Amino acid sequence: MMQQESLEYFLDQLASSAPTPGGGSAAALCGALSAALSSMVANLTLGREKYRDVEPAIREALEQSERLRADFTQLINDDIAAYGALSAAYRLPKATPNEQAARSAQIQAALKGAAEAPLRIAEHARQALDLCRTLAEIGNLNVISDVGVAAIAAHAALESAELNVLINLKVIKDRALAEMLLQRLDAARAGAAPMTQDILAAAREKMDV
Amino acid sequence: MMQQESLEYFLDQLASSAPTPGGGSAAALCGALSAALSSMVANLTLGREKYRDVEPAIREALEQSERLRADFTQLINDDIAAYGALSAAYRLPKATPNEQAARSAQIQAALKGAAEAPLRIAEHARQALDLCRTLAEIGNLNVISDVGVAAIAAHAALESAELNVLINLKVIKDRALAEMLLQRLDAARAGAAPMTQDILAAAREKMDV
Repeated sequence: MMQQESLEYFLDQLASSAPTPGGGSAAALCGALSAALSSMVANLTLGREKYRDVEPAIREALEQSERLRADFTQLINDDIAAYGALSAAYRLPKATPNEQAARSAQIQAALKGAAEAPLRIAEHARQALDLCRTLAEIGNLNVISDVGVAAIAAHAALESAELNVLINLKVIKDRALAEMLLQRLDAARAGAAPMTQDILAAAREKMDV
Repeated sequence: MMQQESLEYFLDQLASSAPTPGGGSAAALCGALSAALSSMVANLTLGREKYRDVEPAIREALEQSERLRADFTQLINDDIAAYGALSAAYRLPKATPNEQAARSAQIQAALKGAAEAPLRIAEHARQALDLCRTLAEIGNLNVISDVGVAAIAAHAALESAELNVLINLKVIKDRALAEMLLQRLDAARAGAAPMTQDILAAAREKMDV
């Protein structure tokens, strides 16, 4: 599991010409950074007299951020597995018509996984972004800049995952499936950019910068 | 050094209520993700017949991305050290006027480091973004989506670092210093948002999505 490896190892592998990890795993790690910062903000809000009124909502936010963090960590691995399968399919022999047909079928099967993994990253990133909106409203003001960073990271995860979904959708031959996946992507990204800008504007207003 | 710790440990520490690591280190890691993806794109462009003409430029890009990756990795630690020093200064006793004066002086000294670390992250993020523009033009088309993710991550690092610079600048009493730091920040962010959009538009055009 990649999360047990060092940051340095992950970055070395990302930088190398090896097929995995790639942009999808980087997107999932961005999502995990967002969720972790949301957890930090929640942890620094809980138990403070000034924020006693919002304690139940913050507890719920913390549960959600920790669940998202675990999911994003898993998605780093899922993207590696899915893209590894696709990369292996592309390397299958294609000398004879039979080999070509088998390879093509294998690529089409693998493409579904290679689109599904970043799509799930995008869907989780949207949840992480929605959570930042809540924390920008009720979280500890002393760490409002960290809510801003969490929102930026969630949106970066969403935009990055989007590119990885689109590049795979384009070559999926089952157009009905591709259309269904595209609809899920559209739902995840709808309004995400202006929401990120709103959270950042609110954070900067509260930071008074 | 944080880069020798596991991803899981880093995320656990980020999520905790401990003062470090925080948003600044998350920004530096985003920058490292961008630089690593740029290295991957360069590594997957070098030695390909189709890209022989741009080989010298790609070699230069790879040198730069690897230098940036090393710098961002160091900046994860620098931000932890600088913010740790600030956090320690805030915890100094303030019972007597003498203690108050000593604490205030220590906080002001630590604030300079706490602004300088994210400022250097922002400056490096701008370089990482400029590098993505080059790779979007001459890098291997098969990994153009990874150039897009690298640009998104560089811009996220820049925007995140910006918030961390601003929140510290605000409380620096040496206004001449604060003004100088702000000018460096302005130089780093000038035109970064439209440049990111241009890179993404170019990537999507080449991806044909």
